[in-house]
Amino acid sequence: MNALGRLYGVGIGPGDPDLLTVKATKIIATSPVVAFFAKAGRRGNARAIVDCWLKPSHIELPLYYPMTDETHFDHPPYREALGHFYKQSTVAIAAHLEAGRDVALLSEGDPMLYGSFMHLFVRLRGNFDVSIVPGVSSICGAWGAASAPMTWGDDSLVVLPATLPLGELTRRLALADAAVIMKLGRNFARAREALIAAGMADGAIYVERATMAGEIVTPLYEKQDDSAPYFSLILAPGRGRRP
Amino acid sequence: MNALGRLYGVGIGPGDPDLLTVKATKIIATSPVVAFFAKAGRRGNARAIVDCWLKPSHIELPLYYPMTDETHFDHPPYREALGHFYKQSTVAIAAHLEAGRDVALLSEGDPMLYGSFMHLFVRLRGNFDVSIVPGVSSICGAWGAASAPMTWGDDSLVVLPATLPLGELTRRLALADAAVIMKLGRNFARAREALIAAGMADGAIYVERATMAGEIVTPLYEKQDDSAPYFSLILAPGRGRRP
Repeated sequence: MNALGRLYGVGIGPGDPDLLTVKATKIIATSPVVAFFAKAGRRGNARAIVDCWLKPSHIELPLYYPMTDETHFDHPPYREALGHFYKQSTVAIAAHLEAGRDVALLSEGDPMLYGSFMHLFVRLRGNFDVSIVPGVSSICGAWGAASAPMTWGDDSLVVLPATLPLGELTRRLALADAAVIMKLGRNFARAREALIAAGMADGAIYVERATMAGEIVTPLYEKQDDSAPYFSLILAPGRGRRP
Repeated sequence: MNALGRLYGVGIGPGDPDLLTVKATKIIATSPVVAFFAKAGRRGNARAIVDCWLKPSHIELPLYYPMTDETHFDHPPYREALGHFYKQSTVAIAAHLEAGRDVALLSEGDPMLYGSFMHLFVRLRGNFDVSIVPGVSSICGAWGAASAPMTWGDDSLVVLPATLPLGELTRRLALADAAVIMKLGRNFARAREALIAAGMADGAIYVERATMAGEIVTPLYEKQDDSAPYFSLILAPGRGRRP
């Protein structure tokens, strides 16, 4: 019987292929199977980012999400479809691990920060060895693209999904020195409203496609419309102590 | 007259030399000058991390902090010495840039998250071109080492310096789903007290020297003493939505 394969949760950074870590490129090079999430019918952003790091000998395992828009999580059929998808994906990866093949499961940004990877990790870690390769998070990619120092001295930082209700967003911003609001999409107007209410809109920066082709960095007050892709974000840099 | 050199703020990750990004290794390879912060009389952790990426032809520019312990910032002679240090460091880097030499200024973790880099960045960006190379932050390194998924679904995350007063820590923890408390050092006992008060101590994890030799990962409730290095941290993972 073969030894079991090892699962690697590989952070691949915010988008620029050169923002993979050296470790990520080594793990991908030595893993026979490379798995990644993608929308149905698409190649997927993760697969595109690692294109130059893959060889023809790699077994590619695309994991296709069952939905393509921002259907709300509280919708029961969505939740059921997602649960089914994670279960199927777990089975597909486990088959390779049981056959003794290491699997590099790609995660945009960092694997442990809102990563779909985590849903498979908690289902597989009981039966297989798993190693985490941390990555450059999408938020570090964004404030780097914006050349925006975020936290100084005793500044606290809060990272909020724009999917939270307005009151929750505003209450949490009010206690923060620096803030990142993620998952904008159709929640953009609410995120802006919360930043205004918390007095943090003036220095805020809107960032889209950080470190990738088509990157947009603009002061929030200059953004005229309320349209934003789901993976865009808003930065409100801290203003703490500076000798 | 030569063209001016370019300053790169290069994130070098949490400690493992393989957690530099490919981009960081390229920028270091092509920059004639590599600058880094260090305690007086030491080689410095940043210099140690990039050791395998440096060549004999590099001009090394160590920037020695004027103090070696956790003197509090409110102490005026400390603040004055630090301001003088940043000014001197700015002058030393500017001299290379004016002579047309690119400078890679190393930053442990990510340059824009509590990085000393930021203090030189704001002094130099008016006169020179600066590019930011984001890095794997120390917090991503820590939760990767702990194999701890941090934020799920609508979880919010707060990053707090343990230097804040107890009341501030507790109030901010109370509004967060997941938390990281940094800069522990002599503030460890206060950080633990705040987590207990906020009901977040049970699942919390203490992490020291993540991704480096001597790495320690332990449940907070198993840590018996209150001693911790300044650059250790505590993670309180989120427990959000999981289909």
